[in-house]
Amino acid sequence: MSSQEVIPDYLMPATSGEQLLDNGQGIIDPDVYFNTNKPPADLDRFEQRLSAFVDYHRQQGTRVVLITSGGTTVPLENQTVRFIDNFSNGNRGATSAEYFIKAGYAVVFMHRQFSLEPFQRHYTHNPNRAFLDYMVTKEDGSVCVDPAYAKEMHVILSEYHRAKEQNMLLQLDFVTLSDYLFKLQSACHILARLGNKSMYYLAAAVSDFFIPSQKMAEHKIQSRDGALNLVLDQVPKFLKPLVSNWASQGLIVSFKLETDMSLLVPKARQALQRYGHQVVIGNMLKTRKQTVTMIMNATEKELSLTPEELNEGVEIESMIIPALVHIHDRWIASGHTDSP
Amino acid sequence: MSSQEVIPDYLMPATSGEQLLDNGQGIIDPDVYFNTNKPPADLDRFEQRLSAFVDYHRQQGTRVVLITSGGTTVPLENQTVRFIDNFSNGNRGATSAEYFIKAGYAVVFMHRQFSLEPFQRHYTHNPNRAFLDYMVTKEDGSVCVDPAYAKEMHVILSEYHRAKEQNMLLQLDFVTLSDYLFKLQSACHILARLGNKSMYYLAAAVSDFFIPSQKMAEHKIQSRDGALNLVLDQVPKFLKPLVSNWASQGLIVSFKLETDMSLLVPKARQALQRYGHQVVIGNMLKTRKQTVTMIMNATEKELSLTPEELNEGVEIESMIIPALVHIHDRWIASGHTDSP
Repeated sequence: MSSQEVIPDYLMPATSGEQLLDNGQGIIDPDVYFNTNKPPADLDRFEQRLSAFVDYHRQQGTRVVLITSGGTTVPLENQTVRFIDNFSNGNRGATSAEYFIKAGYAVVFMHRQFSLEPFQRHYTHNPNRAFLDYMVTKEDGSVCVDPAYAKEMHVILSEYHRAKEQNMLLQLDFVTLSDYLFKLQSACHILARLGNKSMYYLAAAVSDFFIPSQKMAEHKIQSRDGALNLVLDQVPKFLKPLVSNWASQGLIVSFKLETDMSLLVPKARQALQRYGHQVVIGNMLKTRKQTVTMIMNATEKELSLTPEELNEGVEIESMIIPALVHIHDRWIASGHTDSP
Repeated sequence: MSSQEVIPDYLMPATSGEQLLDNGQGIIDPDVYFNTNKPPADLDRFEQRLSAFVDYHRQQGTRVVLITSGGTTVPLENQTVRFIDNFSNGNRGATSAEYFIKAGYAVVFMHRQFSLEPFQRHYTHNPNRAFLDYMVTKEDGSVCVDPAYAKEMHVILSEYHRAKEQNMLLQLDFVTLSDYLFKLQSACHILARLGNKSMYYLAAAVSDFFIPSQKMAEHKIQSRDGALNLVLDQVPKFLKPLVSNWASQGLIVSFKLETDMSLLVPKARQALQRYGHQVVIGNMLKTRKQTVTMIMNATEKELSLTPEELNEGVEIESMIIPALVHIHDRWIASGHTDSP
């Protein structure tokens, strides 16, 4: 891991490691993070599967997009019963994956376990209709999908089978913030083999706060006088090393969700300046399924569905992904994202 | 709500309500809870559906069990993005529901949204096989279940359809701790119409800590110096008013999960004494699918699967539920749970 190579001595773990964990203000260096938290148990398997997928598509010359999707959890105890979660059902990521496959991209779908998944999303997380509610029994002992749903499912299932047969979809999951960060770093290192043919579409809603594992025992749930006192540190800003080291040749797309429209473009520009990546997709909480603004260094562009399109079930991702493919064309051709 | 009638004046909300929220030590009276937290928006609909179900079964003379299942979430912000969750996938509750239906009980399955559900549980929350992975397309445009899974699914689906047709299963959901507590109180009041023909099987893993909604604005996420400071209060012990007021005629079964075997029975006995209910089902974290101990006032009984049974997929709930039905028989006949 390259992070270990660049760590200055004074940040290396010592016997009394407490003062090294942060700057005394709860702000932790990304590099220090990986030295003071445990990698997930399945990281090797994750890397093997991803490596095989990426090498296959490198040979084919296929572009590959890494989509991150869903929320992350932050455990409060070492034997985790309680955790802080930040809600995201993974709708944006799961929907986008289908449109990327349609556009010819091989998709690495790195998602929070049990959040929405491409193709499956049409049938899961429905509070009114469960798995078995789609099925009817037949007298011959077989089980089929209710004809009311079969036509649409036939289309979606065919697309899903095609994606799987053509090896265009690799699904990898995570649960905790720590899983996510270790796997994101690994994924970037592996996708870097594809150079500028890789895209990073960072749609996951990642926790802002966490308890470092070395602090977990110490600051563990204090049940003083009945109340619970928790102190959480800020999650390091990982987009910075991601852009400058982990994935420096890829096209990097991040997301910004706001509730105040006047802040949307300024805050997106601030992120572009701070992290040096290429595209921020800005969306407002209430209208995120109808309108997004794609913000780049020199330009910005609003994509919107008409109310009629929205009613007909057209998805805004059907506009976002072709626009990004166009930007990726320019990125590969010239190393720039903006048209002259 | 009866809770409002018994609140002493000094606990009623005042203009400066802060000191009324707890005893200064983060411990809140259950009655005060309902006056200082908002009921869920769908409580009316919840009560209507449950009322119709209970009245139907009262006419039929069917016994009804209320099963609570899954975890609860504790929001950290009024516009909830972050929340504390306590993990439970709802396996015990969902499995038990099927065995209660087999035993002739009408089941109210009050579960955390998207946790495991009876019948559906055989097909969901599987990290290796998603919804569409069970399906095959046919040339005539229909979609059927892969023959490899059809035989078993035919049996489960038939049982599910029968339960639905005979109105033996009502599924109601909750998300937050507050939803759960308001709905539990309402459910007990409605099930009380059934007198001793009701059973309360409280398998949900309920959060121990929360932020009262009136404190939420005040103690809202403080991002001082980068770190996050949270103070949570203890959740009131609702089993006490549940046993003495809300559901005094029903058979009440609670659960205790331990990691130290020597504490299991003593802690269960302590709970029985403290709350005055009838049965505690004690289980150890590691063996909870193989062995449980049913603890009552005067007796205790261990139920266990042999390793062979466990291997063959026999479920411990196939022993727990008949044992509880037997206890419920005695409860209805004599008002006692223990055999003489």
